[in-house]
Amino acid sequence: MTTGKINVSVENIFPLIKKFLYSDHEIFLRELVSNATDATLKLKHLTNIGEAKVEYGNPIIEVKIDKEGKKLHLIDQGIGMTAEEVEKYINQVAFSGAEEFLEKYKDSAKDSGIIGHFGLGFYSAFMVAEKVEIITKSYKDEPAAHWTCDGSPEFTLVPHDKTDRGTEIILHIAEDSLEFLEEFKIRELLTKYNKFMPVPIKFGTRKEALPKPEDAGDDYKTEYIDVDNIINNPSPAWTKQPVDLTDEDYKNFYRELYPMQFDEPLFNIHLNVDYPFNLTGILYFPKLDANLQVQKDKIQLYQNQVFVTDNVEGIVPEFLVMLRGVIDSPDIPLNVSRSYLQADGNVKKISNYITRKVADKLKSLFNENREDFESKWNDIKIVLEYGMLSEPKFYEKAGDFVLYPTVDGKFYTLAELKEAISANQTDKNGKLVVLYASNKDAQHSYIEIAKEKGYEVLLLDSPIVSHLIQKLESDNENLTFTRVDSDHIDKLIQKEDTQISKLSEEESTQLKTVLEEIVPKTNYTVQLEAMDSQAAPFMITQPEFMRRMKEMSQTDGGGMFGMGNFPEMYNLVVNTNSDLATTILNTADKSAQESLVKQALDLAKISQGLLKGEELTAFVKRSFELIK
Amino acid sequence: MTTGKINVSVENIFPLIKKFLYSDHEIFLRELVSNATDATLKLKHLTNIGEAKVEYGNPIIEVKIDKEGKKLHLIDQGIGMTAEEVEKYINQVAFSGAEEFLEKYKDSAKDSGIIGHFGLGFYSAFMVAEKVEIITKSYKDEPAAHWTCDGSPEFTLVPHDKTDRGTEIILHIAEDSLEFLEEFKIRELLTKYNKFMPVPIKFGTRKEALPKPEDAGDDYKTEYIDVDNIINNPSPAWTKQPVDLTDEDYKNFYRELYPMQFDEPLFNIHLNVDYPFNLTGILYFPKLDANLQVQKDKIQLYQNQVFVTDNVEGIVPEFLVMLRGVIDSPDIPLNVSRSYLQADGNVKKISNYITRKVADKLKSLFNENREDFESKWNDIKIVLEYGMLSEPKFYEKAGDFVLYPTVDGKFYTLAELKEAISANQTDKNGKLVVLYASNKDAQHSYIEIAKEKGYEVLLLDSPIVSHLIQKLESDNENLTFTRVDSDHIDKLIQKEDTQISKLSEEESTQLKTVLEEIVPKTNYTVQLEAMDSQAAPFMITQPEFMRRMKEMSQTDGGGMFGMGNFPEMYNLVVNTNSDLATTILNTADKSAQESLVKQALDLAKISQGLLKGEELTAFVKRSFELIK
Repeated sequence: MTTGKINVSVENIFPLIKKFLYSDHEIFLRELVSNATDATLKLKHLTNIGEAKVEYGNPIIEVKIDKEGKKLHLIDQGIGMTAEEVEKYINQVAFSGAEEFLEKYKDSAKDSGIIGHFGLGFYSAFMVAEKVEIITKSYKDEPAAHWTCDGSPEFTLVPHDKTDRGTEIILHIAEDSLEFLEEFKIRELLTKYNKFMPVPIKFGTRKEALPKPEDAGDDYKTEYIDVDNIINNPSPAWTKQPVDLTDEDYKNFYRELYPMQFDEPLFNIHLNVDYPFNLTGILYFPKLDANLQVQKDKIQLYQNQVFVTDNVEGIVPEFLVMLRGVIDSPDIPLNVSRSYLQADGNVKKISNYITRKVADKLKSLFNENREDFESKWNDIKIVLEYGMLSEPKFYEKAGDFVLYPTVDGKFYTLAELKEAISANQTDKNGKLVVLYASNKDAQHSYIEIAKEKGYEVLLLDSPIVSHLIQKLESDNENLTFTRVDSDHIDKLIQKEDTQISKLSEEESTQLKTVLEEIVPKTNYTVQLEAMDSQAAPFMITQPEFMRRMKEMSQTDGGGMFGMGNFPEMYNLVVNTNSDLATTILNTADKSAQESLVKQALDLAKISQGLLKGEELTAFVKRSFELIK
Repeated sequence: MTTGKINVSVENIFPLIKKFLYSDHEIFLRELVSNATDATLKLKHLTNIGEAKVEYGNPIIEVKIDKEGKKLHLIDQGIGMTAEEVEKYINQVAFSGAEEFLEKYKDSAKDSGIIGHFGLGFYSAFMVAEKVEIITKSYKDEPAAHWTCDGSPEFTLVPHDKTDRGTEIILHIAEDSLEFLEEFKIRELLTKYNKFMPVPIKFGTRKEALPKPEDAGDDYKTEYIDVDNIINNPSPAWTKQPVDLTDEDYKNFYRELYPMQFDEPLFNIHLNVDYPFNLTGILYFPKLDANLQVQKDKIQLYQNQVFVTDNVEGIVPEFLVMLRGVIDSPDIPLNVSRSYLQADGNVKKISNYITRKVADKLKSLFNENREDFESKWNDIKIVLEYGMLSEPKFYEKAGDFVLYPTVDGKFYTLAELKEAISANQTDKNGKLVVLYASNKDAQHSYIEIAKEKGYEVLLLDSPIVSHLIQKLESDNENLTFTRVDSDHIDKLIQKEDTQISKLSEEESTQLKTVLEEIVPKTNYTVQLEAMDSQAAPFMITQPEFMRRMKEMSQTDGGGMFGMGNFPEMYNLVVNTNSDLATTILNTADKSAQESLVKQALDLAKISQGLLKGEELTAFVKRSFELIK
């Protein structure tokens, strides 16, 4: 029997690191700046607890391009390394310095914000460099060390005369990566990944005007000096406590996050949780424009102030992906697939927490200033309605703040709505009937008729509204929604009283026969109703159930067996008490009778937006003839 | 000075492999089946070239679940390993057996289809197993070996009494991965990743009826036997030559790829290139339904018949992502980011090749059976039009097959169109004017007027058509597109002849004054035209330029500075030769005159679909009064 140790051969692992460690080569800069940040924060921690007897000062990290020498320098003023530590932390790949440090100083280091996850980060330098140097001087009283490696596993380690504390990394950029010597490229990467990292990062200098001296004459010329150009904000808003931030601070941070965005956010939600997971952040409700798709991928995910990704699918509940802002959590696994994220318990908890916080915030906004909340309703409704459909926990809380606007601009909660309409809109079977319109213009005549009866008409115009009312009906006993044009008004909410028909039964039968001969059967069912004599003589309605099912299957994406392709079926409601009904009955001339019915049908179709193409052209032509 | 070798410490690299090697743990099965396939194909190759003196036979790969023992077995009948080879290939992580094999047998192995890229694949087993065993017998005359490792770097290696050639991998599934002992899960993974791998894969058995014996009596009961259940098709259509495939074969393969899809593809494009990169595949043009979004992510990417991903963004030109089918190429780098893909030269070449092949195929389909091509136009136009806008190389070739349909169902190429309309539709400035409609119904009356003049009217109804005609105009001198409702017919294509007005100049001025007093200025500009007396008396037009710019900025996503939010402006064209114009002039009663103009304006608005809401309700009510 042989036993032994599996041998990881380093000649072969290096190309692997280079090729497969990160899919994006540009990540190297994020990793090295993270290491420099760690080194600085470690020193801060050790001086805080009195272990390091040096002055912490105001350390910065500097990134410098040497274009001629094809070198990129990263210089920190952090903890530094002794030669012995270089041996340990650099020459032993996959031995994470940060992890060991956290282990050793577990309790005290918890809040020091140390970033590094595993030691491979440093080696990502070899994705873009053909040779890497480290010149490092520890805070301990030991000589500086100079490590050099050309990407083969061979390294050299010699003493160095560096006297100031900290580490300088020198990347000799490889021929295939010369883009990383361009100032705009490095600036772009620093802005993308390090914009909010906790240690100031210097990249170049900028001119700053000196204050004008008090004794300066009229011919004084402004003098400028070079100052460090700090590219990051080490204390972004989300790392602060909500009590320390004003509305203006939140708005300013929004502008910092989205400098190219000119709108103002509607409101923000500050996230802050320690247990059972760690998460901070600020979410903003933006004004949503019609084109919802443009809005995605706007929430940025950070890990200890290091940018990770702007794809937060799976972490943020789906109905909130149209929001903007920042989430920062060390507890979200990186580099893992969506299916894995969805199964991860921590991630699910985070998603639930965000849902709860958003619901709580909406409730308090509603309670604190209802008028303001109502004015924003149109901009936020699609998110909230989608949330009610997709997140049961959000649905439970939605009753407290979700609004139902009327065509006249009033806003009800569901409970208020029930209260307001129960007297007038309960039908003879005890069902409370909510009338709604999807379009104020297109359903104008139907809305008017309902309003004449004193009914409230909601304006529900989101694309997913058919799903939402389906859900509301199934969760609220004796509540039913019906669109104003789904039947004639006396049938929409059936009361005990019945209208008396002017026509005898015989006359009705005769009228129906006449109409059915003329009106095309394939699309219209003739329905005689004894209505108010002033009501419209002809009117087209479309039964609620069929229309809603069609709408639902259309927003679901259709599908072969869905109802999306069913033909449109309408009722032609004819008012037997109208003068026109009598006129039609009394017109003896068949052809005159037919044109009368057809003109009336055309007018009813126009009211429903159903008269189109050739029929419409003919109608208009005929009507011009009539008035000329 | 110290020099030395960087030491990769295996205690730490193991968890790394487990955590970060692949984002999806399920990948382990793909990797192990790929290894088994490699082992089998290597043996085939060695027997082919006479190096292995054994019978190749009909080897299969078997996957077996032992639920009780919490084990998953993978058994192949391939090349096997000696104890020495286990030491070399298994105990040295990152030492790729496949690469060494390819190096050694470079020339002859080129076409043997060996898959493995690097030796880490085997270790992906530890993502789901707490212990892994290998029992393997080489094709060489040496005893079998039995290797065991529990995920620590310690292994044991002992002889084994296995006598049949090949390798068995036994995974002792870890507690957190018990899902991989479920039959449905393994079946799902094999179907997803290995459906078209080149060696038959057995997973379980199924019953098959024995043929009825000739001498069987009436009371014969069908007998069944268990046969191997092979889950893959080792020779999928794309690995064959086009000449060996019938139309039916292509359709069958479509059904094999998309068993849940009930439509038939419109046509297919067989890809096959060796140089300068290697790529095979079959692309299908599906019937596109209105809901385009549902169609994405349907092209599957394979590498040597192993499924890799269904996200081909960057590899397939963007305008073709709505297609379906398969692409197989060993030259597409895996595990790399989109930005990297976009920069990679090989990938760009592949994308260009696909564009060219698609264009060539469309051209030949058009030439071979134009009628059939025309009948499919509606289903493919959106892809082709988008291709013209986004791929210059596609645009160059598009003249040969892109069609411009008329409202009457005729189809022209651009060259044919120019030829057909040049006599009748060239205006007095020598510009060739193409008239088009975006909706046959909505623009019906305008289309009719143009047709009466003998003009052709195209039906261009894709959402991106405004961008397309903008491009066509800038690339074709003296060609201009204008929608039929953008002006009255004599202005759309201006000829030398001018109509004579019935009204005197004075009367015209008077009419204009009357009209401008009544017609709202904010939306309508009154434009008097001396037209045919039979033409519509009132008509609303919308200038082409403004409307097109608005449309373009809307499909671009709008934007603050776009024109999407400009108000709609229309012209009210009044025919001074119409009877109505005279009637209006001669109506002395101001109020009667006003209602006449308003009714005429309403009718013109109805023709353009502009009469809505309250105005429409009032119009219908008024019109019912008129006929009752």
